Amino acid sequence: MNSPLRLGIAGLGTVGAGVIKIVQEQSALLAVRSGCDITISAISARSRSKDRGVDLSAYDWEDDPVALAKRDDVDVFVELMGGEDGPAKAACEAAISAGKHVVTANKAMLAHHGQAMALAAEAASVNLRFEAAVAGGIPVIKALTEGLAANHITRIMGVMNGTCNYILTRMENAGLPYAEVFEEANQLGYLEADPNLDVGGIDAAHKLVLLSAIAYGTQVDFASAELQGIGLISVDDILAAKDMGYRIKLLGLSSMTDAGLEQSMQPCLVPYNSPLGQLEGGTNMVVIEGDAVGQIVMRGAGAGEGPTASAVMGDVMDIARGISIPVFGQPAATLKQTKAAKSNTGSPYYIRLSLNDTTGVMAKVTTALADAGVSIDRMRQKGHQDNAAPVLIVTHEATPTAIDMALKAIEATGDLAKTPIALKIVEV
Amino acid sequence: MNSPLRLGIAGLGTVGAGVIKIVQEQSALLAVRSGCDITISAISARSRSKDRGVDLSAYDWEDDPVALAKRDDVDVFVELMGGEDGPAKAACEAAISAGKHVVTANKAMLAHHGQAMALAAEAASVNLRFEAAVAGGIPVIKALTEGLAANHITRIMGVMNGTCNYILTRMENAGLPYAEVFEEANQLGYLEADPNLDVGGIDAAHKLVLLSAIAYGTQVDFASAELQGIGLISVDDILAAKDMGYRIKLLGLSSMTDAGLEQSMQPCLVPYNSPLGQLEGGTNMVVIEGDAVGQIVMRGAGAGEGPTASAVMGDVMDIARGISIPVFGQPAATLKQTKAAKSNTGSPYYIRLSLNDTTGVMAKVTTALADAGVSIDRMRQKGHQDNAAPVLIVTHEATPTAIDMALKAIEATGDLAKTPIALKIVEV
Repeated sequence: MNSPLRLGIAGLGTVGAGVIKIVQEQSALLAVRSGCDITISAISARSRSKDRGVDLSAYDWEDDPVALAKRDDVDVFVELMGGEDGPAKAACEAAISAGKHVVTANKAMLAHHGQAMALAAEAASVNLRFEAAVAGGIPVIKALTEGLAANHITRIMGVMNGTCNYILTRMENAGLPYAEVFEEANQLGYLEADPNLDVGGIDAAHKLVLLSAIAYGTQVDFASAELQGIGLISVDDILAAKDMGYRIKLLGLSSMTDAGLEQSMQPCLVPYNSPLGQLEGGTNMVVIEGDAVGQIVMRGAGAGEGPTASAVMGDVMDIARGISIPVFGQPAATLKQTKAAKSNTGSPYYIRLSLNDTTGVMAKVTTALADAGVSIDRMRQKGHQDNAAPVLIVTHEATPTAIDMALKAIEATGDLAKTPIALKIVEV
Repeated sequence: MNSPLRLGIAGLGTVGAGVIKIVQEQSALLAVRSGCDITISAISARSRSKDRGVDLSAYDWEDDPVALAKRDDVDVFVELMGGEDGPAKAACEAAISAGKHVVTANKAMLAHHGQAMALAAEAASVNLRFEAAVAGGIPVIKALTEGLAANHITRIMGVMNGTCNYILTRMENAGLPYAEVFEEANQLGYLEADPNLDVGGIDAAHKLVLLSAIAYGTQVDFASAELQGIGLISVDDILAAKDMGYRIKLLGLSSMTDAGLEQSMQPCLVPYNSPLGQLEGGTNMVVIEGDAVGQIVMRGAGAGEGPTASAVMGDVMDIARGISIPVFGQPAATLKQTKAAKSNTGSPYYIRLSLNDTTGVMAKVTTALADAGVSIDRMRQKGHQDNAAPVLIVTHEATPTAIDMALKAIEATGDLAKTPIALKIVEV
C-alpha cells in the first residue's frame, strides 16, 4: 500500500458534500482499487457554520482557498467553488505553483483559461483533471482522451445542459410557456445564479469547447463558438416539431473542417425517437464520432450530487493510481491555435414567422426564400385571432447563409410582427 | 519523446489488419497523444501469403506466436488469434513470463483463465488489457474500471452480441423464421466457427462475466452464469412482443445480491422504445448502475475492423502513456471468490405454450399456473390450423422458481406439443 493521497477540498456545495460522502463511506473500496488510502486534510467554503449533512469535524478549516491549495498536507486540490475567474482560478493556480494536482468541476474557468492553466500544470508536472466539468457523471473526458485516443475524431454532438432540457421537456409535457417554466425551474433551484449561463447556452458551450480541444488537438476556444439560447422557443414550436416527428433540444455540434473549427450550441430539431430526441429532464448525452470507432453514444445524469461527485472522484482515483496524461490529451504546447469557422453545411430548417396579416405578405415571404435559394418542403399557416399570422415552414436542405439572407429579406419587408426563429433540423 | 513502443501482433484477421492500419495511418496522432512512437516489430498468423489489404513488408514474420511473444524487440504482445486455450493462451503466458505487456481481444480466454492470467501479469508487473474483448469499440472496460472507480456498482445490463441482435431484428423486419435468418447470417460470415458461441449466448456471457469481475471485485466466474440462447425464439414471439410494446433482446444481467453473484444471459422482453429496445443490428449497449453515478448507458459498434481496432489501440495508447492499473481494477489477489446465486427476483414473464388441442387443456394450464402462484395478466389463444394451439400468456410479477414450477406442471400434463418458452420482461 502506498502512502495516502490527501485531498484539500474548496467549495462545499452539493458536489463538495457528495465528494466527502464518497471518501467517508467508500474508503475500503477506494483503497483496494487505487492502492492507497484517500483522505481529506482540509476544507474551505464561504460559510463555516452551514450544515451540509456530512461530518466535517475531522478536517482542518481554511477560510482562504489559496491557503488551502498550498498546504503541505494536501496532495490534490479539489476545486468545487466555480466561477470563471476570482478565487477558483487563484486557488487552482496557487495549487499548481505549489506542485499540487488539481481536480476541478469548473467548466467556465477552463473554457476561458484552459490553455494557460494546462501549460502551467504540465510545466509543474502536476495533473489538472476535469471529468466533472463536462456532462456530470458521464465519463466522457476519459472516453475521448483515453479510450478513443487512437481515433481521428470527426464530430461531437451533445445535449449537455440539463436545465435547458428540463425546461424544453416541461414545456412540451405541461404545455406551459417558456417564461412560466423558466420561473418554475428558478424556484426549484435548477438555474445558475446568472440564468443566462444555462438558457443562453453558455454553460453547455463551455463543455463543448473542452471536448473540442481534446478531440481535435486545438487550444480551447470559447470566444468563437456560435451561441443561441432557448429563450425564443415557444410551446407552438415544440408542438409543431413534435407533429413532424421531431423534438427541440439545445444541441452542441463541433467538427473540424477544411475551413476550420466549427462549434455551435443552439436549439435544433432532432428526430423524436432518436437517442438524443428521447432524452428527458436532466439527462445528458454525448455522441462522439471517430474514424475507426464509428459512433459512440454516452448517456447519464448531467448534474447532481452523486453523479458529479462520481466524476470528481474518478479523477482523484486516477491520480491515486499514478495515471498522468496531458490535460487535453496531448502536451498543451502542441495544441494548435485553429481558425474558427462558421458552419455553412446545408441542412433542412424549421422556420417560424409571425407575419402582419396583410394582402400579399405570403408572396413576399416565398419570394424572399426563393431569391435566397431556399426551397420549401412544407409550409403551414395556422389559424389566428390577432393580426399576427403564424407561419411554419420546413425547408429542404439550405445553408445557414441562405437562411440568414432569406430572413433578412423577410425582415426588410416590414411585415414581421415578431422576431422570426430558424432552427436547424439534425438527423442523428 | 520517449523511446518507441514496439508491438508484436499475433492474428491478422479483420481486427489485426485494422490495428496495423491505425498504426500506419495515424502515426503522428498516436505519437503526439502518447508521447512516443508506436511501431510494429513482428507479426504472426496462420497464413503468411494471404492478402490482408495492408503492407506487411516492414515487419518480421514469426510462424510461432510464442516466439513472437518473447522477442526482444517486442514491448507489447497484441493477441488477436482468439480461442479459449491453445496458441492464444500459450503465447499470452509466454509474453507475460518474458515481461511483455499483453493487449488482447480474447473474451473466451479471459472468461476461463482471467484470474490466473491476471495473477501472473501482476506478479510480472506487466499490463494485461482487454478493452476489445467486451462490446467492441465502446470503451466500457475503461469507464467501469477507471471513470466509475469511486462507485459501488449495483447492476450491469447489456446487449453485447451483435450477431444475435442482427438475427432477432432481421426476423422481425423480414418476418423470416430463425433457421432461415441463422443460415443467412452464416452466409454473411457473421457467425463464429462454432455458431453456438453466438446464438447460445456464450460469447455475450464471456463479456458479461469480465464486467462483473471488475464491477464487484470478484474472480471471473463464467461457469456459474445462467445461459439461454435465442434458438427457441420464433417470429410469433417477436411479433407478439412487438404487439405488446416490447422487443426481444439477448440481454445480460449481472448484480451482486446478499445471496451472491447473479449473472445471466438470456432473451428478454424490453420496452420497444427504450434505449435497449431500439438497438438495431450489430450495435451493442451496456448499462452500468452505480450508487453515486446512477445509470450510465454506452452504445456503439460491438464488432468490426475499425471499432475493435480502436479498442485494441486504446489499450496500446494507455501502455504508451505509462498507465498501469490492475487487470480487473484491483489486485487480482484481492478479488473475492463469490458464491454464485440464481436470480429469484420477481418480474413479469412472457410465456408461449403450444398445446394439444384437447378438451380441458386450458383448465389444466391455468390451474398449473395458479398452483405455482403465477398470476395471469393477459392471455391469448391464437387461431390455428393444426392440432397445436399456440397460447401466449403475460404474467404478473413472478419468480423464476414459480415459473419453472408452473412449466414443469404443464409439461407433466402431457398436453404440450412443443417445448414451451418463458422470457423475462425487463423494464429498463
